[in-house]
Amino acid sequence: MSEKPWNGRFQEKTDAQVEAFTSSIKVDKDLFYQDINGSIAHCRMLAKTNIIDERDAEALIEGLTGVREKIEKGEFEFKDSLEDIHMHIEDALTQSLPQSAGKLHTARSRNDQVALDTKLYLKDITLQVINGLRNLKRAIVDLAEQHVDTVMPGYTHLQRAQPVLLAHHLMAYYEMFSRDVGRFKDAMKRMDENPLGSAALAGTTYPIDRAYTTRLLDFRVVTANSLDAVSDRDFILEFLSSASICMMHFSRMSEELIIWSSSEFDFIELSDAFATGSSIMPQKKNPDVPEIVRGKAGRVFGSLIAVLTIMKSLPLAYNRDMQEDKPPLFDAADTLLSCIDIYSRMLPEIVVKKENMLAAASKGFLNATDMADYLVGKGVAFRDAHECVGKAVSYALGEGKELHELSLGELKQFSGEISEDIFDYLTVESMIKRRTSDGGTAGEKVKAAVSAAKQELGKEQIG
Amino acid sequence: MSEKPWNGRFQEKTDAQVEAFTSSIKVDKDLFYQDINGSIAHCRMLAKTNIIDERDAEALIEGLTGVREKIEKGEFEFKDSLEDIHMHIEDALTQSLPQSAGKLHTARSRNDQVALDTKLYLKDITLQVINGLRNLKRAIVDLAEQHVDTVMPGYTHLQRAQPVLLAHHLMAYYEMFSRDVGRFKDAMKRMDENPLGSAALAGTTYPIDRAYTTRLLDFRVVTANSLDAVSDRDFILEFLSSASICMMHFSRMSEELIIWSSSEFDFIELSDAFATGSSIMPQKKNPDVPEIVRGKAGRVFGSLIAVLTIMKSLPLAYNRDMQEDKPPLFDAADTLLSCIDIYSRMLPEIVVKKENMLAAASKGFLNATDMADYLVGKGVAFRDAHECVGKAVSYALGEGKELHELSLGELKQFSGEISEDIFDYLTVESMIKRRTSDGGTAGEKVKAAVSAAKQELGKEQIG
Amino acid sequence: MSEKPWNGRFQEKTDAQVEAFTSSIKVDKDLFYQDINGSIAHCRMLAKTNIIDERDAEALIEGLTGVREKIEKGEFEFKDSLEDIHMHIEDALTQSLPQSAGKLHTARSRNDQVALDTKLYLKDITLQVINGLRNLKRAIVDLAEQHVDTVMPGYTHLQRAQPVLLAHHLMAYYEMFSRDVGRFKDAMKRMDENPLGSAALAGTTYPIDRAYTTRLLDFRVVTANSLDAVSDRDFILEFLSSASICMMHFSRMSEELIIWSSSEFDFIELSDAFATGSSIMPQKKNPDVPEIVRGKAGRVFGSLIAVLTIMKSLPLAYNRDMQEDKPPLFDAADTLLSCIDIYSRMLPEIVVKKENMLAAASKGFLNATDMADYLVGKGVAFRDAHECVGKAVSYALGEGKELHELSLGELKQFSGEISEDIFDYLTVESMIKRRTSDGGTAGEKVKAAVSAAKQELGKEQIG
Amino acid sequence: MSEKPWNGRFQEKTDAQVEAFTSSIKVDKDLFYQDINGSIAHCRMLAKTNIIDERDAEALIEGLTGVREKIEKGEFEFKDSLEDIHMHIEDALTQSLPQSAGKLHTARSRNDQVALDTKLYLKDITLQVINGLRNLKRAIVDLAEQHVDTVMPGYTHLQRAQPVLLAHHLMAYYEMFSRDVGRFKDAMKRMDENPLGSAALAGTTYPIDRAYTTRLLDFRVVTANSLDAVSDRDFILEFLSSASICMMHFSRMSEELIIWSSSEFDFIELSDAFATGSSIMPQKKNPDVPEIVRGKAGRVFGSLIAVLTIMKSLPLAYNRDMQEDKPPLFDAADTLLSCIDIYSRMLPEIVVKKENMLAAASKGFLNATDMADYLVGKGVAFRDAHECVGKAVSYALGEGKELHELSLGELKQFSGEISEDIFDYLTVESMIKRRTSDGGTAGEKVKAAVSAAKQELGKEQIG
Repeated sequence: MSEKPWNGRFQEKTDAQVEAFTSSIKVDKDLFYQDINGSIAHCRMLAKTNIIDERDAEALIEGLTGVREKIEKGEFEFKDSLEDIHMHIEDALTQSLPQSAGKLHTARSRNDQVALDTKLYLKDITLQVINGLRNLKRAIVDLAEQHVDTVMPGYTHLQRAQPVLLAHHLMAYYEMFSRDVGRFKDAMKRMDENPLGSAALAGTTYPIDRAYTTRLLDFRVVTANSLDAVSDRDFILEFLSSASICMMHFSRMSEELIIWSSSEFDFIELSDAFATGSSIMPQKKNPDVPEIVRGKAGRVFGSLIAVLTIMKSLPLAYNRDMQEDKPPLFDAADTLLSCIDIYSRMLPEIVVKKENMLAAASKGFLNATDMADYLVGKGVAFRDAHECVGKAVSYALGEGKELHELSLGELKQFSGEISEDIFDYLTVESMIKRRTSDGGTAGEKVKAAVSAAKQELGKEQIG
Repeated sequence: MSEKPWNGRFQEKTDAQVEAFTSSIKVDKDLFYQDINGSIAHCRMLAKTNIIDERDAEALIEGLTGVREKIEKGEFEFKDSLEDIHMHIEDALTQSLPQSAGKLHTARSRNDQVALDTKLYLKDITLQVINGLRNLKRAIVDLAEQHVDTVMPGYTHLQRAQPVLLAHHLMAYYEMFSRDVGRFKDAMKRMDENPLGSAALAGTTYPIDRAYTTRLLDFRVVTANSLDAVSDRDFILEFLSSASICMMHFSRMSEELIIWSSSEFDFIELSDAFATGSSIMPQKKNPDVPEIVRGKAGRVFGSLIAVLTIMKSLPLAYNRDMQEDKPPLFDAADTLLSCIDIYSRMLPEIVVKKENMLAAASKGFLNATDMADYLVGKGVAFRDAHECVGKAVSYALGEGKELHELSLGELKQFSGEISEDIFDYLTVESMIKRRTSDGGTAGEKVKAAVSAAKQELGKEQIG
Repeated sequence: MSEKPWNGRFQEKTDAQVEAFTSSIKVDKDLFYQDINGSIAHCRMLAKTNIIDERDAEALIEGLTGVREKIEKGEFEFKDSLEDIHMHIEDALTQSLPQSAGKLHTARSRNDQVALDTKLYLKDITLQVINGLRNLKRAIVDLAEQHVDTVMPGYTHLQRAQPVLLAHHLMAYYEMFSRDVGRFKDAMKRMDENPLGSAALAGTTYPIDRAYTTRLLDFRVVTANSLDAVSDRDFILEFLSSASICMMHFSRMSEELIIWSSSEFDFIELSDAFATGSSIMPQKKNPDVPEIVRGKAGRVFGSLIAVLTIMKSLPLAYNRDMQEDKPPLFDAADTLLSCIDIYSRMLPEIVVKKENMLAAASKGFLNATDMADYLVGKGVAFRDAHECVGKAVSYALGEGKELHELSLGELKQFSGEISEDIFDYLTVESMIKRRTSDGGTAGEKVKAAVSAAKQELGKEQIG
Repeated sequence: MSEKPWNGRFQEKTDAQVEAFTSSIKVDKDLFYQDINGSIAHCRMLAKTNIIDERDAEALIEGLTGVREKIEKGEFEFKDSLEDIHMHIEDALTQSLPQSAGKLHTARSRNDQVALDTKLYLKDITLQVINGLRNLKRAIVDLAEQHVDTVMPGYTHLQRAQPVLLAHHLMAYYEMFSRDVGRFKDAMKRMDENPLGSAALAGTTYPIDRAYTTRLLDFRVVTANSLDAVSDRDFILEFLSSASICMMHFSRMSEELIIWSSSEFDFIELSDAFATGSSIMPQKKNPDVPEIVRGKAGRVFGSLIAVLTIMKSLPLAYNRDMQEDKPPLFDAADTLLSCIDIYSRMLPEIVVKKENMLAAASKGFLNATDMADYLVGKGVAFRDAHECVGKAVSYALGEGKELHELSLGELKQFSGEISEDIFDYLTVESMIKRRTSDGGTAGEKVKAAVSAAKQELGKEQIG
């Protein structure tokens, strides 16, 4: 057999630089494990259906296992002239089994093979992502549990708005990452379809048993249409979309950790182990991990756009453009997994400066809404109450005081409905305690949410 | 009440150009229907929980209904100084009900209100998309059913590869759009959570009943965390991701229709009703609809990137940046729905030039794989068979013939295993018939797929 | 003449929904001004070259002017059935001049016409952007001039790093917007090529004079290749790229203004005219304008990706996909111009809280680098000095002091080279004064930069 | 000196996985050459200004040269614990010159250092791109020169429109790549500003001579503002924008080469050296190189979005997010250079099937426009002529004939103005010959364009 499986028809050799340009081996060699496992399953099926004989199959499986071990040990040589991982493995097999190696490719093409390898790879990655996100959710719940009494200012427009519990704030991220898990699970469901046996594009004439390879490779079901099976990259795009949304969540959390680490906010301190210093400014302790994570969001968005663009306007079925899907996919997968891991390990080490958070929640008129609610409770229409509080805030600003620092007399200027009980009403504690609406920041509600989350995570661990 | 609900605290008037710049009314006025329905539900709940009295509630609901009718009739005036749709409606209400209008905003903020409106809007759109895609799938299946015997060349790399049935080719798109439906259903599931009652960010001190508004507004469940509920735009991003993947599918189908409409391919003719001419070249019949659809894919990708970028790095909870999510969302929703609709109506009108397709499938060595399979059937190893066929193709190219036009003698040059039965083996019909692997292009398989699809669509219609 | 210019060849009427789908009139009607001016120039050229006679030309120009006025006055009816702005104008002309209207389209096609219109439009927009950015730069320099003595902390990683002058910080944005101007000027240079006369794709058989229309329409030069001229959208992409980079600059400035407006930083206060309040929280003063601008960056990035995707893989020459370039272009142009305008008007109104900035610059070990430099000045190797200061910072942190609050004795623990003169060395003023390297923050350097900028802007105004 | 330059202040060791996560050495080690050259220039300047003494400088330069050689020979060990390329080189220097290594970092920070390295790298890449594009333009012109008589159909909407010369078609790409060169030159102009000496963010207190390093490192000018200099990544974005537009051009050319290589078009054959075969279909000759290039466009668009997103909303000055700019930049630079190179080498090897192109140009009513022009020449208004030809086309379609295959009698049915001379008028040759408008496809025009291009390229070569 000549080196390239397809050069019987060709009269010139492929140019070396063309080989380097078209070769995907630098990237797809990471699929060797999936490729060999897929080949073993294919081989078992060929024997089961008597397309090849049992002895050949055994030899091939042994040969494939040998190649896998060689690659795992780093003893395998990769070279551009062999194009891709499929060719490398076949070439190695041909050297050890010149008679039977050629039979492995019966009823199969690189088109269904690469679809299979990529799905096997991505199913594994997606499982890792789901498990990683569960660890992260655990880290969030654990931290929240420690802070069901920690008061901080809640912000809108980065302006202090109303006091909330830090636990409540953290549980917002719990919700985001829970939705991410949902999306990855749904993506998994759709990617869990076995393309092997679709051959080049039209199916095959051999009496193959696709249900058998589907069982062997632990897929949910067989793909329904051969043309679609070899030209579909939706599963990559759905993964990248979900990864982009998840990275957007990380970018938000990172932004907050960075802002909170500033001298001005001074709400938290990252562990030394997760920060780095400056080569020129010895006092600096930089929130490098959150910054890098925030930056990496851009990388993942870029990967999504890359693959969307690659797939745009491609006619059926396989086109070589699709080879370019792997670098952005692999980069995004690595990026996402590393961000999940580093945050799961960083969060428990964060030192929360409770007093600073509480102090911030106590200044800046965060009780203004409650003063309006107080007035409504006394029968004032909401909009009127709102305007009256607005004037009180304006007055207090002029005096350099907070609302609760005004005297009863001063307060009465703005509404005759105000009486002594307002001062209890405007404390940070009572404000939080009163927000008992579903999903609100009242301690009882937040504790219940934390506890429900722990139970949910416990169940998932068992299941 | 002064015009702006928040200007008690302010001493200068908002600049007119600032008003124009910050106003979102040109875009979010399209949410008036959702906004008023949400307000009515809120109002019912406030009365049920005795936060406002029943009489006020009735008046408010009547007032809101009146505003809705006025807008529907186009008799409502929109102006930049009133910022957004929420303020417009409230302002109109205040004019007719100066006493009670202010009470409607009790236990609510524009932050949960806009989240609610957008979700109500997008749930409706998503349902339309799902239904639209079902119509499209029906159109595809109907066309496929007419072409279970129509042979065309299957392509890889835009090179003729193996003959397939046109029905099989069409059913590949059926699979794609089915996955799209799955994604939109999953997105729907996650967007079906009611944010109303989260108030500005921390929940509310009023004894509201969120379960009640959830029932009234037909949501699946209440959102679990108030901070998350007002700052979450995942549902928009998941919709835009799914829309981008779906538009990618449209771009592929469009590319094929455009190529097939060329003089060179000449496989189809679009109905006159779906094509346009040239102002300078009278003979032209341009596939404008597929071209525009292909172009629109770019628009939707752009919307996805827009919202991902908008959300990147935003601290909790609501930030005004989020206002910018609506133009890309609305544009993408309109675009997607219009593409689905136009394709559902265009596909049935396509004239398929069967003879041209068949002729193309008969030239270009599309039986080369089968000749290799033939040899394998005679005991030749696949790779050797492949190489031998490669040489035969090279020889035939030189002779200006197809493989099946070579004489038995010529064929025997390349392998002694070849005998007379090869000629039957290499006909287009037998090639297709033999591809009976699951998902393959054999007529029986394709008919079964079409029939299963019809059954599935029938069921969905009932369900 | 039947309504559609191309329906001689067609036997069915275009479907109404197809008309609505393919029509671009809702968007490209904004090009009426350019379209009519282009037609007038074309008409003048046709007369000059005797392709049409002078009388026809005069009538046509009068007719076109009439249509332009009608549109300007809002008295013109637009309808989907007339596809685009070109057809609308031609149709109106045909009604008033049934004999000669048909002659206007001689030696021209909608393909070169739409390229022309878009270039005329974008040249105008680009000029507005350049002028707008100059105004913005003026606003920045004016603000900087007021703050050549205002000290603030310079940040890296959002950590206080070294004191800088606010003027220096502002002038960093001056540099960014100056590069933006450069990019828009370069884009202008390349878009300033007249495509008119390229006809449908291949040039025309009429003896036209392209140099003449080039002069009339104030283009730099004629496009060199007809196929390229009608299929080129580089000028849009270059504009959108430059706009995206410029909006990225705005997003950075906005982020800073938002952070600086927080209670925690409290460095600035936006004018009431440029901020809005909360409907539920009366105390809030939200930095809405910077937030919206920051969000709009996403919109412009989305437009760039939209047009890049639209153009990807389009074969020559014109394809209908290109029609989809206008909505993202128009949206991005409006967005950019409005952001430039609003910032030029907002910046002068910002109230800077100098004392807060100075106080922040005085705390947080911002003199650590200078202490290292001090030690280097005494002969210590930089890296050793750095480490020694690191230890001093660590010690001071433990004592709850700043470096300059340590006693000489305490300081000497870390290096024997330290003596009394260190205290003068570590003041904020001396730190800034010493940074006289080119581009550094020393007052003299910053004043020179401000003054050079004023001179540059003065010159530009004249030129 | 302890291993990390900044850990005097820290009490815990950096976590190993944090090191792996934050380390950029796997990527930025490719900047070693620029980093060392920058350090040598910095060192020369420090000696010239007597900040360090001459002997130290000589030792440092010798040491740096040694490190560079070691890296070039592959004898240098890279490890995550040393973060980045700057630290690796400094560490190696410290081992060989423990006394003086520390002095090299005087008046410099990693912030200006990495900006410098990246600019040096990108200036070099940009020059390579410009030169590569010139080679590509040469290849295009050479191919065009061979085809100044080769007729092909010009297309709009992928429908045959009017005949053009292949040379004219190729020269459209010449124009595109010429604009690309212009953009890269303009980008170069703006990136050619030396940031070295901006130090961490505020300039330095040492009496450095930035003009001197600017000369040594061959920059055009010194950056004007230290805060901007360390936080500016415009030069990367402008490169990526220009690269994206250029890749869009490649995607268009690739699409055409792929379509032209199909059996249906059959206009060209790629050299065997630039195509590959199928592992399962022996007859296939796939246009892999154009397909991969088309796909790679998506990768570059993704890189652009990645860096735009990374930079969005970053406050001044340096933030660690910026580290993430290098993987997308390096990937895009490699991709672009490899595509330019492979196309420059592939184009000359393309076999053009002239007869097929001519045959295609002769069928499909490509002379319809000219028939209209013919009628206009006889005094018919353009629009009327257009409609009349439309009807003739419709008739001829029914007859299965081309326009020029109709008899004079048949033709006269559609207009009494038609006479015998129409047949000469409608030949492919005369149609092309008549398109002599500037930029038109007439042979004389195209030859002049080719010749002007050759002259321009000749001049560039010398200059």
